[in-house]
Amino acid sequence: MTTQTHTAIDKAKLTEQLLAAVEARNIQQIKDLFSHLVEEEIAEILESTPLKERQFLWEAVDSDRQGEILTHTNDEVTANLLESLTPHEIAGITEDLETDDIADIVQSLDSSDQQTLLASLDEVDRNAVEMALTYPEDTAGGIMSTDLISIRADVTLDVVLRYLRKLGELPESTSELFVRDREGKFVGSLKLTVLLTHDEDTLVKEVLNTRIPAIRAFTPEKEVAHFFEKNDLISAAVVNENDQIIGRITIDDVVDIIREEAEHAQMASAGLDEDQDIFAPAARAAKRRTFWLGINLLTAIFASIVIGLFDASIEKIVALAVLMPIIASMGGIAGTQTATIVIRALATGKLARSNSRSLLIKETTVGLFNGVIWAALTGMAVLFWFDDAALSMIFATAMLINLFAAAFAGAMIPLFLQRMKIDPALASGLMLTTVTDSLGFFVFLGLATIVLL
Amino acid sequence: MTTQTHTAIDKAKLTEQLLAAVEARNIQQIKDLFSHLVEEEIAEILESTPLKERQFLWEAVDSDRQGEILTHTNDEVTANLLESLTPHEIAGITEDLETDDIADIVQSLDSSDQQTLLASLDEVDRNAVEMALTYPEDTAGGIMSTDLISIRADVTLDVVLRYLRKLGELPESTSELFVRDREGKFVGSLKLTVLLTHDEDTLVKEVLNTRIPAIRAFTPEKEVAHFFEKNDLISAAVVNENDQIIGRITIDDVVDIIREEAEHAQMASAGLDEDQDIFAPAARAAKRRTFWLGINLLTAIFASIVIGLFDASIEKIVALAVLMPIIASMGGIAGTQTATIVIRALATGKLARSNSRSLLIKETTVGLFNGVIWAALTGMAVLFWFDDAALSMIFATAMLINLFAAAFAGAMIPLFLQRMKIDPALASGLMLTTVTDSLGFFVFLGLATIVLL
Repeated sequence: MTTQTHTAIDKAKLTEQLLAAVEARNIQQIKDLFSHLVEEEIAEILESTPLKERQFLWEAVDSDRQGEILTHTNDEVTANLLESLTPHEIAGITEDLETDDIADIVQSLDSSDQQTLLASLDEVDRNAVEMALTYPEDTAGGIMSTDLISIRADVTLDVVLRYLRKLGELPESTSELFVRDREGKFVGSLKLTVLLTHDEDTLVKEVLNTRIPAIRAFTPEKEVAHFFEKNDLISAAVVNENDQIIGRITIDDVVDIIREEAEHAQMASAGLDEDQDIFAPAARAAKRRTFWLGINLLTAIFASIVIGLFDASIEKIVALAVLMPIIASMGGIAGTQTATIVIRALATGKLARSNSRSLLIKETTVGLFNGVIWAALTGMAVLFWFDDAALSMIFATAMLINLFAAAFAGAMIPLFLQRMKIDPALASGLMLTTVTDSLGFFVFLGLATIVLL
Repeated sequence: MTTQTHTAIDKAKLTEQLLAAVEARNIQQIKDLFSHLVEEEIAEILESTPLKERQFLWEAVDSDRQGEILTHTNDEVTANLLESLTPHEIAGITEDLETDDIADIVQSLDSSDQQTLLASLDEVDRNAVEMALTYPEDTAGGIMSTDLISIRADVTLDVVLRYLRKLGELPESTSELFVRDREGKFVGSLKLTVLLTHDEDTLVKEVLNTRIPAIRAFTPEKEVAHFFEKNDLISAAVVNENDQIIGRITIDDVVDIIREEAEHAQMASAGLDEDQDIFAPAARAAKRRTFWLGINLLTAIFASIVIGLFDASIEKIVALAVLMPIIASMGGIAGTQTATIVIRALATGKLARSNSRSLLIKETTVGLFNGVIWAALTGMAVLFWFDDAALSMIFATAMLINLFAAAFAGAMIPLFLQRMKIDPALASGLMLTTVTDSLGFFVFLGLATIVLL
């Protein structure tokens, strides 16, 4: 037995070798390369491969690994890979999957293929998949697996130990057994570590952990993730409305939720969806982004209209046109900094009505500090550049006002959107830019018109 | 025994009650409210509380919970909370923590306090903490815990079972035992589920899992997280350069890494650090953000200089000043969409030299599509607004060029930064805005100057 240690796979090199093999149409070499990889890695490689090459790679994957791979690809890539398979083939590759994963795949199919796939399952699995389908994808019921072991509270650990040995195998990531009463209701859990360290004559109910409650099937996945993190859980039981144990959620599902949740904020701020194929056809990608550009156009036109109000002033003092983007840009950055902090605090549940006032005060104070500093610095720069004291004063005043307003708007807009039940990560950026651009232009050009003309 | 299910704590309400109790200086009520919460929740509440109230709440926390709470607060908040404690008190509250957590706290102290704290530990713990301190914080060695159980391969499961029962308690989140050879070198792991389902006469080496290698102590934490996700692990062994087992990493550490990593991209794009106190004093927060605003000012001035090149044209056709922000703004949004996708693909390791060309082609095609669509639409809008066919044509052409260039720059800039070993999440946004603003102004004003004047 030799000691092995983990070495990172050189993904870049591997992807290059794979693409070379695709080019050479060398299926055997692709199969060789895939044989060194786990399913999740192959899923990642498929996601990072352009469509045509992806199809070729996909066909080189052993069919008994395709199902597992599909559980790791994102929704759009999964749908893309399923396109090339017949309903019969899909039934074949999914038969060994856990029922929650089958349910996810069923949701990517059109309804006639769904029926074919469901019909191909045995009754136990079909019932489990149909149950999973009754819960929304982003709830505990939608992500749970039905593969779990539950025991009664009034038996001894010795009975449990013999039962497990008889089973011969436990579901993956089992770290605890769930304890049910006569009616299948959840009463607590028995950690394997407790089972292993206590006397065999002990009754389950004596060492039962009742501190960690079960999760209701309709609990949103975000709350599930928070519950896991808070209690450092590896698995938790899911119960139906009658408190009966119907499934189990494990930490690897939660890791996926956390990753998606955190990525969501990043992608949403650019009007993007985190569950998309980076190699989606250009026309489809363009169509999706068009909406966002359209909304942005409206905000940009609004800012233009503000400028248009002062066209006579700009005609007389062209320096105004030269300087106005600086005020808008600085306001945009300052506001974005505040908004990013507030959006993140909201997403992690750190901001409530009680402390949002304190944060608003802090952020506007920061805005005021920044406003004073940058008004002074940029005012001097303008004086130096245009040699015009009045213009410099006006510029500095507008900068001060816009940085202060940007901080205020950067804090208020996400709070307001949250109150309105609109995703702050999605809409804050554009609303904020509308404020910082339009207000920046208005204050600067307006002051100039009053003072200089 | 009653069935319990998880209900989300109403954090908003709770924080409000706590702040009311702070205002009323009612320590007993605070203690009552805290008694219903786990340490991680108290940590979150402290992070979401303004500085003065935070100090009051912190003093109301039982000292035997303070240490555990400090392991959940972010670096800046931890340092803030530690300020109020004497080195002796810090030694008291940290004595029951795991050694990796003590090491983290040691790093938040100044060097004389560090010595006091280290001196207060018993020899075993001090050695473990000192070992943890020799590894950078963001490596496997820096996040590992030294609390683990290792066994020999040549014993029977029965011996292992009796050993565990004698121990009476296993370290938290133990899902497997690590198997070492005579010299302490890692040879594999024994899952508790395997231990429970196999015959007691079986030798450990017969059921040993050698598929999952150990992690070297200097492996970066990002790679550790990827390794866990890829293999759906709950724990993994950490070895030193001699392959000897020196520690253990568990999934809850990995969840923290994943969350931080994903949040990093969001915060970095606004020039912020994810490990900061949202209630840091305004002056300190302003100072930090000043740097970012300064860099942005340079890019904004550059754009202004570009506008300044064409001041004579603007003086003659003031509509140019009115319309120019629209072109810059649309380019900024389109470029940001592409850059966000590329930054995310780079962060998740999905983009390598081999497929970046395909992505560049796809994104510039999207840029061209969007360019054509929005050039046509906005060109018509300008025609309608200003009733000037030449101006409309120029505007549409500039829009087309800027959207195309934005997509190209949005893809190239993060790739280039990555190649230069600069964090793309941090610097892409500003560089991109410089391109889309300056180029947008230059093309539009330049074309107008050539054609209209």
